[in-house]
This record gives sequence, structure tokens and C-alpha cells, in this order.
Amino acid sequence: MSVISTTVLVFALYGIFACFSTNGEVEKPVWTWECRESRCEKVPAGEGEAQSLAACRLSCDPWATLWPQPRGGLQRTPGRLVALSPYSVSVEAAGRDLQPAVRQLLQEAGRIFHRRVERKARVHSKQARADAGRGSLFVTLSVTDGHTRSYHTDTSEAYSLSISEVTPGRVNAAVTADTFFGARHALETLFQLTVYDDIKKQLLLLSDINLSDSPAFPHRAIALDTARSYFSVDSIKRTIDAMAANKLNTFHWHITDSHSFPFVSETFPKLSQYGAYSPEKVYTPDDIKSLVEYARVRGVRIIPEFDAPAHVGEGWQWVGDNATVCFKADPWSQYCVEPPCGQLNPTSEKMYRVLSGIYKDMLNVFDSDVFHMGGDEVNMNCWNTSEVITDWMDANGIPRTEEGLHELWDRFQSRAYSLLVEANGKKELPVILWTSTLTDVAHVDKYIDNKRYILQIWTRGTDLVIPELIKKGFRVIFSNYDALYFDCGFGAWIGSGNNWCSPYIGWQKVYDNNVWDLLSLFGIDVGEGSEARKLVLGSEAALWSEQADESALDGRLWPRAAALAERLWTDPKDDWKSAEHRFLIQRQRLVDEGIAADTIEPEWCLQNQGHCYA
Amino acid sequence: MSVISTTVLVFALYGIFACFSTNGEVEKPVWTWECRESRCEKVPAGEGEAQSLAACRLSCDPWATLWPQPRGGLQRTPGRLVALSPYSVSVEAAGRDLQPAVRQLLQEAGRIFHRRVERKARVHSKQARADAGRGSLFVTLSVTDGHTRSYHTDTSEAYSLSISEVTPGRVNAAVTADTFFGARHALETLFQLTVYDDIKKQLLLLSDINLSDSPAFPHRAIALDTARSYFSVDSIKRTIDAMAANKLNTFHWHITDSHSFPFVSETFPKLSQYGAYSPEKVYTPDDIKSLVEYARVRGVRIIPEFDAPAHVGEGWQWVGDNATVCFKADPWSQYCVEPPCGQLNPTSEKMYRVLSGIYKDMLNVFDSDVFHMGGDEVNMNCWNTSEVITDWMDANGIPRTEEGLHELWDRFQSRAYSLLVEANGKKELPVILWTSTLTDVAHVDKYIDNKRYILQIWTRGTDLVIPELIKKGFRVIFSNYDALYFDCGFGAWIGSGNNWCSPYIGWQKVYDNNVWDLLSLFGIDVGEGSEARKLVLGSEAALWSEQADESALDGRLWPRAAALAERLWTDPKDDWKSAEHRFLIQRQRLVDEGIAADTIEPEWCLQNQGHCYA
Repeated sequence: MSVISTTVLVFALYGIFACFSTNGEVEKPVWTWECRESRCEKVPAGEGEAQSLAACRLSCDPWATLWPQPRGGLQRTPGRLVALSPYSVSVEAAGRDLQPAVRQLLQEAGRIFHRRVERKARVHSKQARADAGRGSLFVTLSVTDGHTRSYHTDTSEAYSLSISEVTPGRVNAAVTADTFFGARHALETLFQLTVYDDIKKQLLLLSDINLSDSPAFPHRAIALDTARSYFSVDSIKRTIDAMAANKLNTFHWHITDSHSFPFVSETFPKLSQYGAYSPEKVYTPDDIKSLVEYARVRGVRIIPEFDAPAHVGEGWQWVGDNATVCFKADPWSQYCVEPPCGQLNPTSEKMYRVLSGIYKDMLNVFDSDVFHMGGDEVNMNCWNTSEVITDWMDANGIPRTEEGLHELWDRFQSRAYSLLVEANGKKELPVILWTSTLTDVAHVDKYIDNKRYILQIWTRGTDLVIPELIKKGFRVIFSNYDALYFDCGFGAWIGSGNNWCSPYIGWQKVYDNNVWDLLSLFGIDVGEGSEARKLVLGSEAALWSEQADESALDGRLWPRAAALAERLWTDPKDDWKSAEHRFLIQRQRLVDEGIAADTIEPEWCLQNQGHCYA
Repeated sequence: MSVISTTVLVFALYGIFACFSTNGEVEKPVWTWECRESRCEKVPAGEGEAQSLAACRLSCDPWATLWPQPRGGLQRTPGRLVALSPYSVSVEAAGRDLQPAVRQLLQEAGRIFHRRVERKARVHSKQARADAGRGSLFVTLSVTDGHTRSYHTDTSEAYSLSISEVTPGRVNAAVTADTFFGARHALETLFQLTVYDDIKKQLLLLSDINLSDSPAFPHRAIALDTARSYFSVDSIKRTIDAMAANKLNTFHWHITDSHSFPFVSETFPKLSQYGAYSPEKVYTPDDIKSLVEYARVRGVRIIPEFDAPAHVGEGWQWVGDNATVCFKADPWSQYCVEPPCGQLNPTSEKMYRVLSGIYKDMLNVFDSDVFHMGGDEVNMNCWNTSEVITDWMDANGIPRTEEGLHELWDRFQSRAYSLLVEANGKKELPVILWTSTLTDVAHVDKYIDNKRYILQIWTRGTDLVIPELIKKGFRVIFSNYDALYFDCGFGAWIGSGNNWCSPYIGWQKVYDNNVWDLLSLFGIDVGEGSEARKLVLGSEAALWSEQADESALDGRLWPRAAALAERLWTDPKDDWKSAEHRFLIQRQRLVDEGIAADTIEPEWCLQNQGHCYA
């Protein structure tokens, strides 16, 4: 129903604008853009017909301005632009053995594509002419795997796309893909091959193009912390829209922390009642389920994180009985990395009962093939100064040494993992942990099983532990903070000066964060077929939200996460310099779709290709 | 008419929400805030009635959470909170000899106040109860100067405000001020003394309070560059709203630059036709006039800048005949500080004819007591390598030395000033110039008259030229980039790494940018009544927009410009630490009014006063 009403609205608006434009006089453009050596040059329009920047770029750019750049070949007839009616777009699902659920996903992805094409015509100009662009677009989505509707790390995202004008004004776009996820990516590519021409006031589609494409890495992610700041469900949806537009496929949800507990647990609702910033700042089971479906149809899976045993606090006051220790400890710097402190008490049975409920509730509302158990920044001094814990250690013969405290942590981790498996219907599932002292060279062999655990690296890309983990056969995800912590570079929030991981990370650094280069520096073999190629699942940009709430969300993530997206999808050989032209266009695409992406360069650089950069 | 429809809408919404809330069951709050030693402590609610954070803060804070902190005394009865109906607010203008235009300003300021009070009730909760808060507020604005409707540097902005509950539920707020501008500031203060109580679901007003207030500095400004990026008229209005909420009084509009020419000149409309980023990205005379009026009623004057003789380019292609030189010169680094280069040709008569028209058009649409002529970053090599200029210098016996080139610049500046005065009906007017080599110690005595020119300092606060300019009797405005350039700290836009003036400037540094401390370090007498006290007009935060378009606008400016606002209004003795509590509240106020202000700290710090900071 919403699709229908959108269409009606669009028709109505177009009617009004058409009236205006026939009454008004359109100034003849002063400038035109000409394709010269694969670049668009701004030159005086003269007497001839002017060409818009958008039309020039689409037909002139060797990669048809696609972001991320496709990995397979791209064959094209330069400059085949077809004027398109935004109302003459149809998307059909095809494929043998198509399960109804998968057919539904394909159809919904088609509707989303159509809505966005219509909006592209609408957003760009109030003077769009109803009579401009008579061409029709027929899209066929053919999928061989008619069953897969949840993304797993080994799910194929490959697709091929072939666009041709079969008769004048009729364009066919044939998509073939292994799965729904590949087919959806093809629609994203197709969407980027349409532009609004602000001189001709019409939509254009680049036709006569064939490409095949698939991602280099299976794990292409953003991590969002919704505990230091709360983000509305709508703003998370907007984030997923932007991820989809960049073919990022994983939203890692750091949903709770010491600061707040917005997750509404069905078993223990008091946790969020005590722990949320306000009764409205929560995520109900329905919110989460709707987000999981919203993300699925956009090719994004949501991985929940319940960070433990550190990074807890608010909400657990209700549990009482020393289920947590050190909460709000003073001075905080002795018990944690930032206020407020708080850690689970690994000796509390009541704590495990609550934890078990949380796991059960999370697995119930998320549909993820993997669970993130957190595990970062455990403060040994917190446990070692909590009498309830030290008494237990003494009673159980565990020495109050660094080794003893790690043994305690291991007991927690092992028990927590068992509870998770039990909550998962006794089925084992892969688990992600942040790197920590438990996963460092001194402890990892003793405590961490590489079959069970995937490690997320958050230290610098030059950390010596990285090659060791690879050598030990651990699957890893890179979130090295020197390139992928998007909260870095702002003012300090405790004291003055700049925050701990300053300076700000520009998109260029994100783009050039090539894990193969990092590993090569350590002498790790990263050749095709090497062990390392199997172990590196991908990367995640992380937005910790001490200094980024909903007001700052879009600008912190975008367009930098788009730079990450091309790094992970395309794994380009070249550095950011050869991507800069297309990156400015991709940033503009995000803005046009309602994402308040940060500004990279003056608009002058977008209009004068090659005059700001090499 | 818009006021009426707003009110009707509000009533309608309240009706709906009232229905919802009577059906729904409200959870008893888990937490309450208690006032202890002038701070609000979050504690378990227990059986008693819970108090909201907002109510606690307003009644508990020694400064009633006001931002900027009032300069005069503040007498109050702690905790006198009156429940207010957002519909029972009236604002009346009073004063002998009130000119109709001033009366109209006062009335419009009153309507704005009323709309914002209504919105405060609406924004905060969907569960607001129509029956909550029966109190009425009667505001009287008494103004002694019934004529002044334009802000000048010597205009009084002082006001006093007295709020008392005269009978139960009826609150009178008596405002007395010299001018409209002071009275408007009083309404801003009064607005901050209302809060929405999210537990009682009603508006509260702090009553029984008297204060008198006036700013320390007359020039409290934001400079916005609308040439590197275009900003819509709506986004500029939003910026002015936020300025008003912080009692900033001057919007310095850097409207054109080499990158684009969005100013629509009535005399030479081709300038923007050639020079704007697009036909829509312009400021028409009507746009500007409406902005001037929009700003006026919010206590903000708009100062236009036409930056010359450097920082020109786009738009001037139309003029031709070498009116400009070096435009798009390559490699840019030899001819300017960033691409594209471009400078006026001071030997071109045609250029002066166009310049004269621009001045006339600008003076026509802006209503400013002062004009900004720019004058920054003239590149001597640009002129010295332009044959049309060097030929002229040779013919006129001006040596092609640094001195000769400064003489050329002086000829331009003198001629341009004459044209400006002529365009101003032959009336002299004060002019602002950026500091430059023309205003440095070697040249300033020869070329710059301290009666005519106000100098805007953009170099570091420790620049040795600063005490020299003060000693020479120049009026100055501080925009020292190390504290007041809000574009600093992001990624580079030419090449990699971070931009030139990194790192990012936190609000603490903005707040602590005390010009008296800076001048004292140079041994300048800054005692009361000193010459320096007369010469420093104030400060400006500048947003250069190479890397900040409309998407980034709010987050770059706010809340940091609010830190500047208190520095300039209050001139506090203490540093940022004692302002932190109130600053978090002011940032939240801006967000509640629709400004996407950047995030300073986790919400946890707002809710747990004193646990994140000292």
C-alpha cells in the first residue's frame, strides 16, 4: 500500500512541476561538460546543446562512476544514455525452486529499487517534466539458490548484470545471481547507473553494459554502539540504507554497555527499565525484529553483541546481590577506562541466571549466524579489589595474580559460552571476541579455541599480536583503531585537549587500510590460496558513541564507511587517489538519499574534475 | 496566520496524545534526582514522588542553568517551579515613544517566544497531557529607546528580568531594557527558565527570580563561508535561530570566493549565472532581505563581506578582459593557498566598474552599519607574473618588488574604499579587513587608517602582531584560528593526512580563548577603562566551508559556538570546568530546537552530574 501511495504522490507532484515549468522560462546553461580523456571538463556551453555533469560523468567514466568498483570485467558501449521514465520500471523475480520467502525478498528489493529511482527524479529538481524520458526499464532477477534468506559468512554475493536497449526506449536489465543477496547487490549497481540530468530535466540510464561482480571479503561491517548514546530505530534504518548503498553486509550492534541498557529483555524487562536513559530510549523485541527484516531485504545481517564481563553497569542495579562489581567506582581510572566503571562478578550465580536470560532473549529476536560476546577491556584491579571476588578466589585456591585473574576470566568465558550454546537450542555457534589480554600471545593458546572464536582486532594495524593470531589459525576481523575507529579526533570528553585516538581519520586512510599490506609487513604470506586469505574475514568501522549521538551519526559514519566498503568489496590495488573522483560522486549520492554525509571537498572539485587533485 | 495555524495544530496533537495517555499505563519512575550541594544526584525513586532531571537542575543550579551565564546579579528563591500551560502565555510590548516598527519587532519576538514554548512541550513527549500545567505567564517588555531597530556596535543590549508568581498559577515576567535588542535577550533568558518535566509531563517555569544582564563584548559573531559550499536560506535561518539562543549578535557572511559566486547582483546578474554552483544555488535580493529581517527580530545583524582583491574567480569569467588574473592557475600552489586561484586585476577599469556595482547591490540589500572588505591572502606572485599587471607597473614606474606590489594593493584598497563610500550615498562607513601583510607592522602605518579600518585577526592568538595593532590604536576582532576556526581537524582535502589547522578544536579551547589573557601575556594593560578594553570589539568563530556543506553545518558550529557565546557575553573569570554542567544542558536545548549540534559527552554524564567531571 505504501508503494502505491508513493507513486500517486509522485505523479501529483510531477503534474504540478510540469505546469510551473511550461509557464517559466528556462535559462540557457552557461556551462557544459565534455568528456576528454576519461574526464569531464567544464567548458563554456556556446551555441550547442549543453551536457550536464551527471550525464557526462556516467558516460565518460571508465567505471561508469560505480561505487564500490566492480571486481569482474565491465564491457560497455561508451555513452549509451537512455532517457527513462521513473514510472515505467518493473522488476521481476525468476528462478527455479524459488521459495515464497525468497521470492518475497526479491520483490520487496525491487519495490525499494523502484521507489529510489522515483525519488531520484523528484529530489533533484522541482522542475522535472512529466513528458521527459519515455524509456522503460524491465529488470529480471534470476536466482539459482531459491532457499537462502539469511546471510552467512559463506553465502555467495556474486551477480552479473547485463543492460541493453532491446528496442528504442525499452531497456532490459538481466540479473543473474546465486542468491538473493547477489541479486540485491545488482539492483544497487543498476541504481547507480541512473542519474538525474539537471539540464534536460530527466532521468538517464546507462545502457549497453555488461558486468560481473563479487566481493573480495565476506565480512564488510559497521559497528555501532547504542549504549553511550541512544540511536532511534529510524536512524538505524537510515544507517542500514546507506550500508546497502555501499554493499556493506554486516551491522554489528554493540547494544549495551556500562552507560545504558536499552535492550528490552523479555525475560528480565527490569534491566532496561533501570538501565535505559529514559523509558522511550529502548529497543523492544518488535523494534529489533523489524530491524532484522529491514536489514535483510537490504542485504545486511545484524550481529548482536552482548559485551561481557566488563562494559556492564546500568540496568544491573536491579539485579543486586553483587552480580556486578565496581559500578561507578571512584576514581574511575583505577577500575576501568572511562566512567562509569562496572564488571560482572564471575562468581555470582545470580549473574549467570540473568546472563542466560539475556542470551536467550537476544538469540530469539536476532537472526544471526554468529554472536559477539565482547570481552574487551576487563580491568583486573576491579576484580582484585572486590572482596566478594577475592574471597571466592581465596576459597577456591585461585591465586590473586595476573594468571589467577585470567583463569577467573576464562571460567567466566567458558561458562558464558555454555549458556549461549544452551540458549541456542544446544547448537554450537561461532563467537566473536575483541582482542584483549585473554587473546594475547601469553594466554590465547591456553584459553581460546580457534575453531570456536573469531577475533576482532582493535589495536593498531602494526600490533605484533596480529601475525601471531594468523599463524595460530584464528579467523580475524580488522577494526584497527588507527584507521577504523570513527570516533577519533574530536575534543576530549574527560578533561581538555583531544580524545585518546586522535587525530581524525580521513577517508584516504580508511581507503588505504589494506590488510594484505599490513600482513605482508609482518612477513605473512598473503598470496592467492594462502592460509591468511582464508582467515581474514574482513573489516569493521566502529563508531563508539561517547561523542556521537543521533545528531552526529551520519557525519561520523559517512562517507568514510563508503571508503571502507570499496576497500572490502573491490580490494583495489591502487590507493585512494585513483578513487577520488568516484568517491565525491558516491558521497553526493548518499546526500541525495537523505544521509547527512560529511563534506570532503568543495563542490568546485566535483564540478572541476582534476583541478583539485591529480 | 502561521501563528494561528501552529496553535491549532498544537491543540490537535495534544488532544490525541491525551487520549493515548489516559488509555496507557504510565510506569512509575525508577530513578529520581535530588538536589545536593547545588548538584542533582540520581538516586532510586523509592516510594515518594520522583523528580525529573530537568526540574531538579532548573531549581538546584546556582545559575538556574542559564547559558550564557548572566553578568549582573541573580536573586532567587530556590525551587520555585510553577506548572505552566503552554497556551496561556502572553507577551506585551510597552514603552513611551515606541515607534511602530519597534513595536512590531517586540511583538514578533513575543510570538517567536510563544511558539518555542509550545514546541518545548510538544517535542519532549508524545504523552503530554492537556490538563497538565494550568499556570499562566504574562510577559511585559518595556523599552526606553523606542527608535533603534538596527544593531550598531554601540547599541545597548542590557536588560533586567523579574519573574514572580503574583497569585497562585499566575506568573508575571517584567522585562526592562534600553532597546529592542536587550528586551529580546530577556525573552531568551526567560525561555531557558522553562523546562519540560518528563515525569510530570508538564512545562515548568522557574519563578521568583530577578536578574540584570548585559554583554561584555559588543561583537559576538559567527562567520560563514557560503562560497566553498552553498548553504540554503533555510539552513542559514536555522543558524540564526541557534545564534539567538546563545545571544550571539552578528552573522558575518563571507558570501563569495574563488569557488563560487552565489550572490545575485541586480546590476550584474551574469556574475551569479556564471559563478553559482547551479541556478538554484544562489542568494537573490529577496532571499537576503528576508534573512536580514529574520535575523533582526532575533537580535542578529548581518555583516556582508565581499572579499577582494584575492579570493575571486568563478563568475568573473563573464566580465572577461583580464578583470581577474590567475584564475585556475596551475600549479595552484604558486599562485594562491588552495585551488582555484584568482585575484582581481587592480589595473583594470572594467573590474572597478563591476566592483562598484557589487558594492551598490550589497549595500542595497543588507542593512549593516559596517562592511567587510576581506583583503586576505593576496598572492604577490600572481600579480607579479601577470603580464597585464607587470606591464602597467612598468609603465607607471612602480617597482616589481614586495614594496611595489604592496603599493599596488594599496591603490586597489583605496580605490575600492572610495567606490564603497560612493555606493553608500557618499557616507563613510567603518570597514573590516582580515589581517594580512598589508596590515603587518612593516606596512600598516603607511597604508591602514585606524579610524576607518577594524582589523580581524585570524593568525594564532600568540601572533606578535596583535599587541602592535593594539598599541597603534586599531579596533580588533579575534578569530585566531587556533581557537576559532571550526573547520580545523578533519582530513585533508588536497592530498592525505589532516587539514592545515589540525587538530580539531574542542569546546574547552573555544571557551578558554580569553583575549584579556592573550593580551596580558604581551604586557598590554587590560584593566577596566584601559585602551585595550575599548579596542577589542569581540570575537568570531569562522566556518570555512571547503569541508562543511549543509550536511555538516550544525555539527561544526554547535555547540562550540555556544562556548564562544558565553566567553563573549559573560567574560567569565573561570575556565570551562565550571561551565561544563550548564554546557551539556545548553547543547541539549539546541538539539531540542532542531539544531543537530555535535555530541560532547555520553548522555550518562548529563544524567550523572559530577561523575564524569570534577
